[in-house]
Amino acid sequence: MKIGLVGLGRVGKIHLGNLIQYFTETEVVIVSDPLEESHDFARKLGVDRIVFDAREVLMHPEVEAVIICAPTPFHIPYVKLAAENGKHIFCEKPLDVDLKAIAEARQVVAQNGVNLMVGFNRRFDDNFARVKALVASGKIGEPHLLKITSRDPAPPPLEYLEVSGGIFLDMTIHDFDMARFIVGSEVTEVYVKGGALINPEIAKFDDVDTAVTVLTFENGAIGVIDNSRKAVYGYDQRLEIFGSEGMARAENRHENDVVFSGKDGVSGALPLYFFLERYEKAFRACLKEFLTCVETGASSTVDAHDGLMATAIGKAAGISLAEGRPVAMNEVLAVLEQKAETP
Amino acid sequence: MKIGLVGLGRVGKIHLGNLIQYFTETEVVIVSDPLEESHDFARKLGVDRIVFDAREVLMHPEVEAVIICAPTPFHIPYVKLAAENGKHIFCEKPLDVDLKAIAEARQVVAQNGVNLMVGFNRRFDDNFARVKALVASGKIGEPHLLKITSRDPAPPPLEYLEVSGGIFLDMTIHDFDMARFIVGSEVTEVYVKGGALINPEIAKFDDVDTAVTVLTFENGAIGVIDNSRKAVYGYDQRLEIFGSEGMARAENRHENDVVFSGKDGVSGALPLYFFLERYEKAFRACLKEFLTCVETGASSTVDAHDGLMATAIGKAAGISLAEGRPVAMNEVLAVLEQKAETP
Amino acid sequence: MKIGLVGLGRVGKIHLGNLIQYFTETEVVIVSDPLEESHDFARKLGVDRIVFDAREVLMHPEVEAVIICAPTPFHIPYVKLAAENGKHIFCEKPLDVDLKAIAEARQVVAQNGVNLMVGFNRRFDDNFARVKALVASGKIGEPHLLKITSRDPAPPPLEYLEVSGGIFLDMTIHDFDMARFIVGSEVTEVYVKGGALINPEIAKFDDVDTAVTVLTFENGAIGVIDNSRKAVYGYDQRLEIFGSEGMARAENRHENDVVFSGKDGVSGALPLYFFLERYEKAFRACLKEFLTCVETGASSTVDAHDGLMATAIGKAAGISLAEGRPVAMNEVLAVLEQKAETP
Amino acid sequence: MKIGLVGLGRVGKIHLGNLIQYFTETEVVIVSDPLEESHDFARKLGVDRIVFDAREVLMHPEVEAVIICAPTPFHIPYVKLAAENGKHIFCEKPLDVDLKAIAEARQVVAQNGVNLMVGFNRRFDDNFARVKALVASGKIGEPHLLKITSRDPAPPPLEYLEVSGGIFLDMTIHDFDMARFIVGSEVTEVYVKGGALINPEIAKFDDVDTAVTVLTFENGAIGVIDNSRKAVYGYDQRLEIFGSEGMARAENRHENDVVFSGKDGVSGALPLYFFLERYEKAFRACLKEFLTCVETGASSTVDAHDGLMATAIGKAAGISLAEGRPVAMNEVLAVLEQKAETP
Repeated sequence: MKIGLVGLGRVGKIHLGNLIQYFTETEVVIVSDPLEESHDFARKLGVDRIVFDAREVLMHPEVEAVIICAPTPFHIPYVKLAAENGKHIFCEKPLDVDLKAIAEARQVVAQNGVNLMVGFNRRFDDNFARVKALVASGKIGEPHLLKITSRDPAPPPLEYLEVSGGIFLDMTIHDFDMARFIVGSEVTEVYVKGGALINPEIAKFDDVDTAVTVLTFENGAIGVIDNSRKAVYGYDQRLEIFGSEGMARAENRHENDVVFSGKDGVSGALPLYFFLERYEKAFRACLKEFLTCVETGASSTVDAHDGLMATAIGKAAGISLAEGRPVAMNEVLAVLEQKAETP
Repeated sequence: MKIGLVGLGRVGKIHLGNLIQYFTETEVVIVSDPLEESHDFARKLGVDRIVFDAREVLMHPEVEAVIICAPTPFHIPYVKLAAENGKHIFCEKPLDVDLKAIAEARQVVAQNGVNLMVGFNRRFDDNFARVKALVASGKIGEPHLLKITSRDPAPPPLEYLEVSGGIFLDMTIHDFDMARFIVGSEVTEVYVKGGALINPEIAKFDDVDTAVTVLTFENGAIGVIDNSRKAVYGYDQRLEIFGSEGMARAENRHENDVVFSGKDGVSGALPLYFFLERYEKAFRACLKEFLTCVETGASSTVDAHDGLMATAIGKAAGISLAEGRPVAMNEVLAVLEQKAETP
Repeated sequence: MKIGLVGLGRVGKIHLGNLIQYFTETEVVIVSDPLEESHDFARKLGVDRIVFDAREVLMHPEVEAVIICAPTPFHIPYVKLAAENGKHIFCEKPLDVDLKAIAEARQVVAQNGVNLMVGFNRRFDDNFARVKALVASGKIGEPHLLKITSRDPAPPPLEYLEVSGGIFLDMTIHDFDMARFIVGSEVTEVYVKGGALINPEIAKFDDVDTAVTVLTFENGAIGVIDNSRKAVYGYDQRLEIFGSEGMARAENRHENDVVFSGKDGVSGALPLYFFLERYEKAFRACLKEFLTCVETGASSTVDAHDGLMATAIGKAAGISLAEGRPVAMNEVLAVLEQKAETP
Repeated sequence: MKIGLVGLGRVGKIHLGNLIQYFTETEVVIVSDPLEESHDFARKLGVDRIVFDAREVLMHPEVEAVIICAPTPFHIPYVKLAAENGKHIFCEKPLDVDLKAIAEARQVVAQNGVNLMVGFNRRFDDNFARVKALVASGKIGEPHLLKITSRDPAPPPLEYLEVSGGIFLDMTIHDFDMARFIVGSEVTEVYVKGGALINPEIAKFDDVDTAVTVLTFENGAIGVIDNSRKAVYGYDQRLEIFGSEGMARAENRHENDVVFSGKDGVSGALPLYFFLERYEKAFRACLKEFLTCVETGASSTVDAHDGLMATAIGKAAGISLAEGRPVAMNEVLAVLEQKAETP
């Protein structure tokens, strides 16, 4: 399979390295990045053609599948261009912050009959995939309660937070996707309670750094997500689903499994520091899923609809926080139906 | 110290047994229960005087302190009578389901200068007491997020549920007390999402068996309680508090610490079955606290105000569930101020 | 059932308290202790007759079963006297340090048709009992490897160590019994490697404070016990059995299940301090087993043979340490056969 | 740095992949393998020169450092040839089964002033490296007891076992190196108890499949290794070191951290299956250590002496098993001194 890759930032480099070492049945024929200093990385890994313009990749005649790791504002236009050129597409998350734009891109993808996979790589984490398998097998019975803990080790700089789109589209969006994935049912209502408890400055952007989000699902299950921008002990990624027949819990992962027992107590390792360490294998597994889907012609398991819904829940959360009330998903999704009715 | 005990039900028996074996510096001079078949238990433990009428205990001239384990509707009248007779009082929870009645009893207790301790014994559980100590010592810094999981192994019969006062006053009330205890700040707002997911029948009583409750605290912290009436794996009592300097988690307790590793996986023990097993030592520690307070003249650490607030939060939760909106505690507590203003 | 108890030391008090609170179907009719200051404890628990002379208990006409908690040198004579008077006997461990003396007492017990149970209470610990059940059910298949970790929080005073009979008869004897119990097969050979690593002074008594003992079992399994007189983090009591179909591990027990995560790491509670805390429930369960056997007429599950073998393995360990070689159990047990041959 | 690699078996492929993806500052200029079908793997990773003859690699004028992953019998001759050609050497373990041959190679390495690192990659496992750090920092105080559990998921075929050199040189050798590494002191005596408990057939080769090895260290510490060729639950790699100030334990690693709680119990994941999964990151860290040593001119932390001692302890274990007695290391190492004396 001949592959093109767009964007050699942090995540683009991970995908390229994985393609070279682990997916030797593929060939990366072209890579693009607007910054020259990034080209060296690809060169050392033996990529022959490295260009500045993403469109050269997206329209390259030999390329069958593209990996899009450009900044978020470019996702939708690049996805459309790739689809129109008949390429299968792996696109980093989030697809976009605008629901209509995502819906349009979804249509273009469908019209061109290509595969679009959104890079919600956490679904492929060993822990979360195992929980999903337990739920899917019926081991927990009917899902009743979902709990997700998702905390970062440290907040990004204020300048970033100002333009991030808010905690729900920037950070919790991963948890919204995870919630839908694990419960296997659509969210119907969102309620948020949040605060600027770590840094009061961010209240200026009408944003919060600590939040509890309650999700109601179509199948009756109730979900809770707790977020913090700053866990002093490191990245905290846990999940628990409780149902009529049992409970599955995914614990946090740690640097090692060594326990020291001394006269003052028993102590163990800190968690793996952040998402690059924690999800190292998940990035690889996610890419593998995409390559397998392309090869076998199977539909992507994480598609445009998933990308759309994660963003939509984020929108609802923002309204709930601002207005202090539960928000029905229909309220947020109405914008799409209006459009559909328009012509 | 001379002690009288009212009520030889399940919990009354536990207190009596503990008094006899572990608190040998006290003397149980009189015990009452309206049912003759209960008297035998006390007789075997060597109690000399066993009567049918609680008032004989509450007014006994030699008795310095009373343990009230009668059914909830008797709590307030017995507390008042004991206070008026100058006895120190240990009363099982909940004090009552009516806020005004609790407030009145509180006044009588204060006027008579006696100690009243409410039997929120979970505060004295080894796990939760340890978490409280970590919070109190400043180890977790400013509290940001509180998570309580509280699930019963099996729901009570429908007939009981019909008259129980609802899940929030019957079951979650313990968690409301725990929440205030751990965070060390008053609750200002309550939001509930619930469902009759285990047995749809209970929806007839406008009750739920599965609930997520979001609490907002005066100090800015946000709390989440998740409840289920039926955890097939047994009693589930966990707690987590996350703050600016760290997190403390109390895990569930299990029957044993044995792990079996076989070709199909690794397996361990179920949790301790229910509150009698789980809180066996906490009952004892709670009673010890009361006896120490009486002996030293110190104020009770779990007093009438605590009893009142737990019930008040339960009321707010009921309103939130019924009306689908966040409810401010002031709205519920207003009934007390009105009364104060009345005359 | 009418019971008499001999000896109100630390363990005698535990048994008496348990009899009064938990085994209300029994009646303690008489208790003895040579020291007057101990009598008060029994008096407060409502025992009517408290005497100085153990023989009054052992020969008391109403007593059906006796609990012997006197110092070790009195065990054998008291066991014999009780047996000759037709009492069922619960005797604290070790029965004695002399194999012949134990064998003789065993004969007297058998001749009088009474039950003798040796108080190896660790067998009734929730953890170890669970491991035994897993082994007995065949879940681990054929046992191949047994590992016991047994470490005390602090060494006894040197004066005690001088007369203790050495680490193997004083401390490891519990582990020898546990090893036989768990594997369900007799020990055939013992090899020891030890050192005076904590306090070189004890080498003067030809004793060690740190030891690794390798046991060979009749069924082919190999066992390892590691002992230390001083684990700075507290009492350490673990066990692991590995077989053809799986492994069962009993972890150490801790004061609580709270984990604190801060910027410097993750920390938890210390173990339960020592045997009184750790085996509190096991003492009760062990006593219950005895009472049940007496009531139903069943044979004791921990009998004189068990008491004999634990002491015999301790003897073999001492020889191995002294001579630096593996010692066959036959070599130690030969002393009994000689006696049997001497008509 | 220009690198040559010899041998494209399972481990050779791992090293080559790691060199290409993770150590991009190095250049693999030549690779050899006698089997043509292996060459394709290297070609896909972009290696330009792939040959059949190892000597072309070991003598290649541009190569500065070689990675030797050939079968064990070739280790010593290849190490010598590489050293004589001035190459730094990374060689897979074991160096050899003959002590004299290792000693000779060590001399050649020393004479040519090159670095030799033996691939005891387990030292670089996150868990074991953390334990070593705790020991080295003095946190555990004086080491008293070392316990290593090392069990394979399944035995190799009988044909392999027949020629493997026995369990001690084939399997336990890794644990012998780990023991020396963790305790930081030389082994002075070895005692083994073993059995053919999994497959009696292997007794024909005077070998065992289950073994307990007791090691005595120069500093007084006592170590125990327990081995099994077949743990039905998977690869089991644990370690515990206990000292005067505390204990460090490295637990086994599992496929995931998900726990399922159902009505029949609580269950978790199996361990990572075997060494390729378990030590994936350790292979990389070990290689990094070598490359760093070569670059900075530092001595290897795992050198020829380490390779020699691991083999020597294995020899002693074999003698102990055969003769049923403790064996002093001096007895085994004497063969080297004899040689030294023979001028």
